[in-house]
Amino acid sequence: MSPEPTLEAPPRGVRPVRFTATARDAGSAARAGRLDTPHGPVETPAFMPVGTQATVKGLTPDQLREAGSRMLLANTYHLALRPGEETVAALGGLHRFMAWDGPILTDSGGFQVFSLAQRAKITDHGATFRSHLDGRLLELTPERAVAIQEALGADVAMCLDQCPALPAEKAEIARAVDRTIAWAARCQDARRRPDQALFGIVQGGAHEDLRGRCAEALIAMDFDGYAVGGVSVGESREEVRRALDVSVHLLPEDRPRYLMGVGRPQDLLDAVHAGIDMFDCVMPTRNGRNATCFTDAGPVKLRNAAHARDPRPLEEGCDCLACSRFSRGYLRHLFLAREMLGPILASIHNLAYLHRLTRRMREAIRAGRFVQLRLDVLEALGP
Amino acid sequence: MSPEPTLEAPPRGVRPVRFTATARDAGSAARAGRLDTPHGPVETPAFMPVGTQATVKGLTPDQLREAGSRMLLANTYHLALRPGEETVAALGGLHRFMAWDGPILTDSGGFQVFSLAQRAKITDHGATFRSHLDGRLLELTPERAVAIQEALGADVAMCLDQCPALPAEKAEIARAVDRTIAWAARCQDARRRPDQALFGIVQGGAHEDLRGRCAEALIAMDFDGYAVGGVSVGESREEVRRALDVSVHLLPEDRPRYLMGVGRPQDLLDAVHAGIDMFDCVMPTRNGRNATCFTDAGPVKLRNAAHARDPRPLEEGCDCLACSRFSRGYLRHLFLAREMLGPILASIHNLAYLHRLTRRMREAIRAGRFVQLRLDVLEALGP
Repeated sequence: MSPEPTLEAPPRGVRPVRFTATARDAGSAARAGRLDTPHGPVETPAFMPVGTQATVKGLTPDQLREAGSRMLLANTYHLALRPGEETVAALGGLHRFMAWDGPILTDSGGFQVFSLAQRAKITDHGATFRSHLDGRLLELTPERAVAIQEALGADVAMCLDQCPALPAEKAEIARAVDRTIAWAARCQDARRRPDQALFGIVQGGAHEDLRGRCAEALIAMDFDGYAVGGVSVGESREEVRRALDVSVHLLPEDRPRYLMGVGRPQDLLDAVHAGIDMFDCVMPTRNGRNATCFTDAGPVKLRNAAHARDPRPLEEGCDCLACSRFSRGYLRHLFLAREMLGPILASIHNLAYLHRLTRRMREAIRAGRFVQLRLDVLEALGP
Repeated sequence: MSPEPTLEAPPRGVRPVRFTATARDAGSAARAGRLDTPHGPVETPAFMPVGTQATVKGLTPDQLREAGSRMLLANTYHLALRPGEETVAALGGLHRFMAWDGPILTDSGGFQVFSLAQRAKITDHGATFRSHLDGRLLELTPERAVAIQEALGADVAMCLDQCPALPAEKAEIARAVDRTIAWAARCQDARRRPDQALFGIVQGGAHEDLRGRCAEALIAMDFDGYAVGGVSVGESREEVRRALDVSVHLLPEDRPRYLMGVGRPQDLLDAVHAGIDMFDCVMPTRNGRNATCFTDAGPVKLRNAAHARDPRPLEEGCDCLACSRFSRGYLRHLFLAREMLGPILASIHNLAYLHRLTRRMREAIRAGRFVQLRLDVLEALGP
């Protein structure tokens, strides 16, 4: 059910999620912390697997938890189209629907409107587009993005933002920043659920002044957390680093910082170095379905003939289901035979790998050796 | 590794698997019992899920065990083609390969040669055929069927038999019976592994005299167990019942009886009534992948619009993962969204349903009320 429109907005300052930094690295902006949510705490830095359609592809909630997942992301655009947020609400909300009793974050739907929907048209009012499923004409405004997310009922909702595709003229990015700021204010005004946090999204491409302007405007609106958006959409590693540094140093210390759509191990190390606390990405599960697995020695491609009779696990020392029970030879067989269990096991490993990497980062930050850990892991991973 | 050809055949009478009937029904030929195998005991009547390519599609070993599976079937034809039995042996044999430490049965490969392979030619020597994967010309003889199965290393291997497609002339079925008997003798002579049982397969269609002749010839060869083959290949329910009654009453009391390829709840009830102990079938997992689920009230089709906002479990009282955590509405969403978790959960439920049905049959046989249970369940299931 959507919340009653007569409800008042929740008072500012009462935070549905609260972030506490528990340790800071001396040699970087890295920090370890805890995000308390209505569905329990999450230690940060944290990686969130993506459950696009209210399921992380092929994995049960127990398998996710065993792999180390604590907080999931679900996609508002996909769920609003199918089964529809009213159906999710009628079935008890997203947590009950997908049987995940840990924290969940939903994106605003904007990114998919711009990347997946057909003939999206954007005005200051919002976006109109046609569903990629059935061509229905639909509208996504800041108010609607909040209403859908409140019906879904995740612990954290995201503001509708505009993320221009790169490369783009600076003037175009500036217009997107203006719109992102205006939409963030409308999202803040539209919220009604006192048990759902709302994060603002800093845009601005690789332009220091635009990032700064966006961050300052959003900070003045006092969001529960802040995301850095518009990264991982085609820019160079150096541009990403600059966008991060510029965005992060302005953000308040007592709010979580979330880098959207980033999941390469190297990028996680860089982003935590820059002060980021949270991540999401389809990469571990998408790569896993495609037989490519993270290891500390770099990617392993399970279809490779070299693995045919290899009795060793995918990664020595990994305690995930794939590595503790199965050989590389068996995993290769599953992929060649097009068996579902291959993508399932590879996805489990890739998630376990990223969750282990975030745990190692947390421990290193607490022990004051994050900079060294980052260099060691980057060197082992290779280019 | 294939066994050394210099090894002698294991002495007759030393049984790698032993069957003990522990209870008999008064009103039917139904019996409850225990099959002791090198990988532990299995209570009968028992249903074996099919792991065609050394994996029950989409399910982990833990999920299988939790659904109630105790003994699995794997397909010799598929595994001999890919990854090859030598690869399975090099990776520690089938149990280690697929990380299933319970009992496994392999079929002989014959059924798939006749149903899947291209241009199969059958002579008294064996079958030549082309692989359905790459067109390679291959041969399957009784000796080769045993050698492949010994390399795979299941607890129970099956004799190569010939199963004529129905409808068939009686003379053709008689020739298949002769060949099945001759091949069974060659399989018996070819075996070398003392830790692997070998079951004979009774053929003969719906002809009492042919079934009788086949059963008597196989019994004289003293197999560790006996299967009833050539059922579930197009005949009527009445023909199945006759074939079963005729085959089963000749078989020795102290050997397990296995009905191949049967998995409908109704057919399990009928076959246990006729004295069968073991079953296998792809139906629970194949139907599950297609969104059709067993329940005591008959099949439920999860794609049906009626389930869209139904918060109830697939089947009340079922303690499987699908029923204990998820709503019909969510399961329907998974299928409409083509998410892997739909087939996974529906397969888990269908297996749990059949395993529960066999447990109810065991309990009813012990309590002397199997005939009543069968009638009650058949009535609830409907036509």
